[in-house]
Amino acid sequence: MSQRKGQLHLGAFLYPTGHHIAAWRHPGSHADAGRDFRHYVRLAQAAEAARFDLVFLADGSGTRGDNVDFLSRTAHSYVAQFEPLTLLSALAAVTERIGLVGTASTTFNEPYHIARKFASLDHISGGRAGWNLVTSSNAHEAKNFGFDEHLAHARRYERAVEFAEVVEGLWDSWDEGAFVRDKAAGRYFDPAKRHVLDHRGEFFNVRGPLNVERSPQGRPVVVQAGSSEAGKALAARTAEVIFTAQQTLDDAVAFYADVKGRLAQYGRDPDDLKIMPGVMPIVGATEQEAQDKFAALQALIDPAVGLALVSGLTGGFDLSGYPLDGPIPELPETNASKSRQSLTLELARREKLTIRDLYLRVAGARGHWQLIGTPKHIADALEERFVNYGADGFNVMPALLPDGLDDFIRLVLPELRRRGLFRTEYEGATLRENLGLRRPVSRYQREATVA
Amino acid sequence: MSQRKGQLHLGAFLYPTGHHIAAWRHPGSHADAGRDFRHYVRLAQAAEAARFDLVFLADGSGTRGDNVDFLSRTAHSYVAQFEPLTLLSALAAVTERIGLVGTASTTFNEPYHIARKFASLDHISGGRAGWNLVTSSNAHEAKNFGFDEHLAHARRYERAVEFAEVVEGLWDSWDEGAFVRDKAAGRYFDPAKRHVLDHRGEFFNVRGPLNVERSPQGRPVVVQAGSSEAGKALAARTAEVIFTAQQTLDDAVAFYADVKGRLAQYGRDPDDLKIMPGVMPIVGATEQEAQDKFAALQALIDPAVGLALVSGLTGGFDLSGYPLDGPIPELPETNASKSRQSLTLELARREKLTIRDLYLRVAGARGHWQLIGTPKHIADALEERFVNYGADGFNVMPALLPDGLDDFIRLVLPELRRRGLFRTEYEGATLRENLGLRRPVSRYQREATVA
Repeated sequence: MSQRKGQLHLGAFLYPTGHHIAAWRHPGSHADAGRDFRHYVRLAQAAEAARFDLVFLADGSGTRGDNVDFLSRTAHSYVAQFEPLTLLSALAAVTERIGLVGTASTTFNEPYHIARKFASLDHISGGRAGWNLVTSSNAHEAKNFGFDEHLAHARRYERAVEFAEVVEGLWDSWDEGAFVRDKAAGRYFDPAKRHVLDHRGEFFNVRGPLNVERSPQGRPVVVQAGSSEAGKALAARTAEVIFTAQQTLDDAVAFYADVKGRLAQYGRDPDDLKIMPGVMPIVGATEQEAQDKFAALQALIDPAVGLALVSGLTGGFDLSGYPLDGPIPELPETNASKSRQSLTLELARREKLTIRDLYLRVAGARGHWQLIGTPKHIADALEERFVNYGADGFNVMPALLPDGLDDFIRLVLPELRRRGLFRTEYEGATLRENLGLRRPVSRYQREATVA
Repeated sequence: MSQRKGQLHLGAFLYPTGHHIAAWRHPGSHADAGRDFRHYVRLAQAAEAARFDLVFLADGSGTRGDNVDFLSRTAHSYVAQFEPLTLLSALAAVTERIGLVGTASTTFNEPYHIARKFASLDHISGGRAGWNLVTSSNAHEAKNFGFDEHLAHARRYERAVEFAEVVEGLWDSWDEGAFVRDKAAGRYFDPAKRHVLDHRGEFFNVRGPLNVERSPQGRPVVVQAGSSEAGKALAARTAEVIFTAQQTLDDAVAFYADVKGRLAQYGRDPDDLKIMPGVMPIVGATEQEAQDKFAALQALIDPAVGLALVSGLTGGFDLSGYPLDGPIPELPETNASKSRQSLTLELARREKLTIRDLYLRVAGARGHWQLIGTPKHIADALEERFVNYGADGFNVMPALLPDGLDDFIRLVLPELRRRGLFRTEYEGATLRENLGLRRPVSRYQREATVA
């Protein structure tokens, strides 16, 4: 291995009962976790005590799909759970140091609201907010927002680019120190430090200024998850963290080099973007214990759920007419998430999987990287990705909650720390500081410097 | 006085430094309250310990106005403060019993997001969420959402009626007990208890279902503030609490009878809607002490701020060309909030106020009812409104925070309790129970009962 210095970053990706599709059926899960605030408090506080950089919440702006039989058999597909911004705001009040990253769609929101809510969360939390920018790949969500058809993939990304520009512009509405609050002089803010964005674009006309002052981090951290060409371009331009999914070291290293190599064209340094792939670890004190934990979850997968899940990952194509133990058929191009679709199909073809094999394979991590074994095995794999520049850290996706997070903290973190790969104390007060990201300079400060 | 039984309800309407326009300049205020989460924690916990029904947060989806000189001299006008849903969610984590009511605009939002966020807050808080439905009277806010011109008053109310219908329909997406979470059978929810709204209307097409299960209160409480004809009609149809502003007992009694009388046409009982006017109390142990507190605040009003404030309350008309000590001129009809405009002008004409008189008068409560005096004086006035059916309770608007809330709790509440007019313990676990509102029956349950 090469001698890469530094430490890796860790996110705790919280999905109500855990990321494994059958986790809710496991005796160790709280089946009502999606509406149990105390469950999330316990998880966030445990992750904070273990010095994770952040907790991460995915989202769907509606149930993903309308196959009611399938939906009724799963706690996944965003059938019913907390909305991320309300949940993260509540968690902000009962945590002190951990980052709070939530997903919000650029396709179904107004940039003013998104800029404002994350800036507000950044103030409430003392500088711990992060926005996971998604364009929403699921056509069912669109129907909750007046669209009969979902926006095409390319069009969603065009909108996302402009959306992010507006949000970042609004976050620069007020310079540092704009609010002088001089009681004696009666001067609340300095008008020279207020900036009206007055954005007029193809998708949005937004005047501004934002009615939240500049946030403790300068700007909330922007996270992005697309692995398509358009997704990588958007990330290189805008994102400070990428949440991605690569199955092999080679793919991870190639993705890492590709995205980091794109930063210079936007005037950014490689360190301005942290690449944190998802990983679903199932850890046991012994290899057998880990395999047993995994088998217990796999055994709980309802075949009807597995089949529908694979359909979802392959772009919504209905596989129910094909034999479970036959090969994956050729699928048409769709308007869904390109990255998840192509990654899933590559996996199936590479390993010559049947439909059943594939659902058993992807049900766990839903297309993400899955690691099953001892603390040493898992630490070896994470270290290998890290030191070979395949990742700057990982978004840990516990298969089962709370046990999977507790296991990772209890068994894997000591092994990572022994290797000097993970912190024992937070470096900074804000998420940005802990991630080692520079404080952003306002566009108006940059202009002033150039002029 | 008549012998009306029962107790009144109290809201704590929190505005960062207090409702008086000059509160931020007072030595007792935290000038940075709008970004100080601990300030709000202290206020909400104090209001809860005193058994207030709810805390109430107003909102603006942008700075109200673009007169930068004026804006820079005031902490009002929504120049910079927390966004209500993030703030209330955070407060939910550090309170246990008090209701959490926040404002969200039907003009600048999507009903799916609003239904979801308030349902999520209701789960996080264990049944304490309330939505204050506003149509947004300020044209400046519209420019943050792609509108060059603000929607006309009547059109905003048409949109609001449909918006509220969609939100309430989404809140009925899941029957009570829909989520069976039967691990052994692999059944997460009962498909028969899931309802797809499939709303198709003039303003919105929203498929549903909502991806949050039925909330602890059945539905979050709906609050509404319009006093115009369209506002009263919307309230009679939809609202469970009205936040309003009447200066005199006669006006309050007439408004109360008017709105309560409209409920029957929507199949509702008078008790299904609580009328809680705003009141700004300035209380002192003696009359002189109260007057001195008020004078100290009035002395801090910058004349430029007072003049602009009156312009705002009279529909945006620029009064700066008129003599401060002359009468209010005749004003043209505008597209702004009809209720505040007419209430302000009625006050000025009734009492033959000059522009300066008016700004000194309304700067405090900004058009709301203002009570200055001893605990007995204030309790007398509140009791008079209550027993004469001019109010079911009050939304208390402290002039200065935190002192004004503390004064009300320390001085006025004991007087109200001595008279049997206010609770010593919460009656219920939810906001709805404490307000004495019935648990709403889902539209699908009603249909099933009728059929």
